[in-house]
Amino acid sequence: MQSFSYFMPTKVICGRDCVRGQGALLKELGAHALIVTGKSSAKNGALADVLAALEANGQTATVFDRVTPNPTIACVREGIALLMAAGADFIVAVGGGSPMDAAKAIAMLAVQERADEEIFSGGYADRALPMAHVPTTAGTGSEVTPYAILTNDAAQTKTSISSPAMFPRLAFLDGKYMEKLPTMSAVNTALDAFSHAAESLLSRSATPMSGMLAKESLRILYPLLPQTAGTPALEERDALLYASMLAGMAIAQSGTTAVHGMGYSLTYFYGIDHGRANGLLLGGALRLSEKKNVPALQDILAACADTLGGICRTLDALLGEREHIPRERLEEFARRAMSNKNIKKSAYEPTQAEVLAMYLNAFCESVS
Amino acid sequence: MQSFSYFMPTKVICGRDCVRGQGALLKELGAHALIVTGKSSAKNGALADVLAALEANGQTATVFDRVTPNPTIACVREGIALLMAAGADFIVAVGGGSPMDAAKAIAMLAVQERADEEIFSGGYADRALPMAHVPTTAGTGSEVTPYAILTNDAAQTKTSISSPAMFPRLAFLDGKYMEKLPTMSAVNTALDAFSHAAESLLSRSATPMSGMLAKESLRILYPLLPQTAGTPALEERDALLYASMLAGMAIAQSGTTAVHGMGYSLTYFYGIDHGRANGLLLGGALRLSEKKNVPALQDILAACADTLGGICRTLDALLGEREHIPRERLEEFARRAMSNKNIKKSAYEPTQAEVLAMYLNAFCESVS
Repeated sequence: MQSFSYFMPTKVICGRDCVRGQGALLKELGAHALIVTGKSSAKNGALADVLAALEANGQTATVFDRVTPNPTIACVREGIALLMAAGADFIVAVGGGSPMDAAKAIAMLAVQERADEEIFSGGYADRALPMAHVPTTAGTGSEVTPYAILTNDAAQTKTSISSPAMFPRLAFLDGKYMEKLPTMSAVNTALDAFSHAAESLLSRSATPMSGMLAKESLRILYPLLPQTAGTPALEERDALLYASMLAGMAIAQSGTTAVHGMGYSLTYFYGIDHGRANGLLLGGALRLSEKKNVPALQDILAACADTLGGICRTLDALLGEREHIPRERLEEFARRAMSNKNIKKSAYEPTQAEVLAMYLNAFCESVS
Repeated sequence: MQSFSYFMPTKVICGRDCVRGQGALLKELGAHALIVTGKSSAKNGALADVLAALEANGQTATVFDRVTPNPTIACVREGIALLMAAGADFIVAVGGGSPMDAAKAIAMLAVQERADEEIFSGGYADRALPMAHVPTTAGTGSEVTPYAILTNDAAQTKTSISSPAMFPRLAFLDGKYMEKLPTMSAVNTALDAFSHAAESLLSRSATPMSGMLAKESLRILYPLLPQTAGTPALEERDALLYASMLAGMAIAQSGTTAVHGMGYSLTYFYGIDHGRANGLLLGGALRLSEKKNVPALQDILAACADTLGGICRTLDALLGEREHIPRERLEEFARRAMSNKNIKKSAYEPTQAEVLAMYLNAFCESVS
């Protein structure tokens, strides 16, 4: 028997209008909420639903809507200061991966003081303010993971912090909040979710549970990928959100792989969207897995019911024109990537030369 | 989007020697454990491992090994009295469904006083002593459910009590504890697990998550069913235990159906083992599902990769000679079953006549 553990304590509530319909579940979280969100949640209806649910419960709230993509430590500090000033005792995160991850860091660092330079050193106590998450994109799956990924300026990358305390208490999933999602966000977040599911299967830390979750995610998500570039029906939005959650549950067990580790440089130095960065690199990781006969590749192909070539073409169509990044920068990123902890977790075990080849492949240069 | 929720907060630890290897996880549960178990756990090694792990943590323990099959309220009361006398502040359940369910009732009723006649009336607060479960059979899946099923003498049946507080904090799964499991127990508990997975799919309360879990359980469990009548290899024991856990996770979301509701009379009045009772009735439920074109039947057949006839033959081979129960008793059981809450949850929607037909089918009488 493979030794593994499984843990995912978040209560997930799915369904149309579930925030208002089951908002009473928020009652047990506290008296005054800090709502951590970005600017768009005011427009997609999620913030209004959360505020209405809290009001119906007799709970009060302070809105922190200054979370930007790839949240920084400064953003987290600003959130904590507002939380303290408002006397908030729980957090509701509303939005995509950035507000959710910022919320998680705020929830934990609000009750465990850390100097900035110690934030990424781990060893957190199992203690955080209770949280509810309302994802408004189908990508990160952060609503069911113990991870928060923050911009790490000292190391010039993005770095994840992890603690079981950062599993949200509640997650509300309703595809209606994605109805006005810009196409580019829909595509990039779907690429992120797809990468989570595929990478989870390609992780050395994959378990029977993460494998089941990742395969179910791919089975639902892959056929919907092309739709994200058009106008997905509401039911398809729901399915994307559910599949993204499953992929989140999978990486909560297995973690991600070199694709994520390599993508952080693209985001940090070139501002390439996180999901897109993963999408750009994933094809190379799948091809390397084929070359190295990684058994999990067959699980990915079977779950997608497609060939490797077919999957790469699907990704290519979604990615469109690729950025130009000079080869010497990619060589530098390859060196940096080798020290990323996700590299060692990849079943496709990339050498530095192979990491570089994946970077070059991502940007259409000739590949060895 | 189907409205549903998902919740299963237990941390599951799987693997050889995981109780000793990861016994440090027990530390946070408390200072003095009440170990709730039956007589056989002293022989299969599980009790010794738990005692060793507790001792290594500097924790003390009191053993309550008087749990009998189909535990009664009196048994639960005896456990609570011992817990109080010993000053235990957490519980470790070691054994099959009976010790696990007794442990759950003890954990909750120890901190929420109830008169005997109120025990089955529900409305429990979300409060119980923390628990770790070490299953030594692959059947009930109780280590990952919020249910405890107790003998209800007032109603002459078995009745489940349910509360999120009864999810164990930890579950340790190691197939080595089943190496000396008597064949009859191995067969009957496997039938129980199989019935959980199949019934979960046939439940009106099935969700996308319960469906995924139940299908994965069937995929692993069904091919191993015949082995339970022989001498399963250790790896097969592990797989049975894992599949039983998955089926438990599934019914934790969906509940069971008429099969369980009908089986309780067979156990209460004829002492037929719980898993066997389900196995006896399941074939009829599957046939009724075929007659009524219940879509989930196709999921069951696909997950088992067998025909309905093949599944019924597999069950028949495991069940062997069937008990004789007079028709008038079965008619009485059919009347009783109609008031069971599980009946209404069955997608195969049995009428009283169909319930009777399933009972008659179970005991080889001619079926309408």
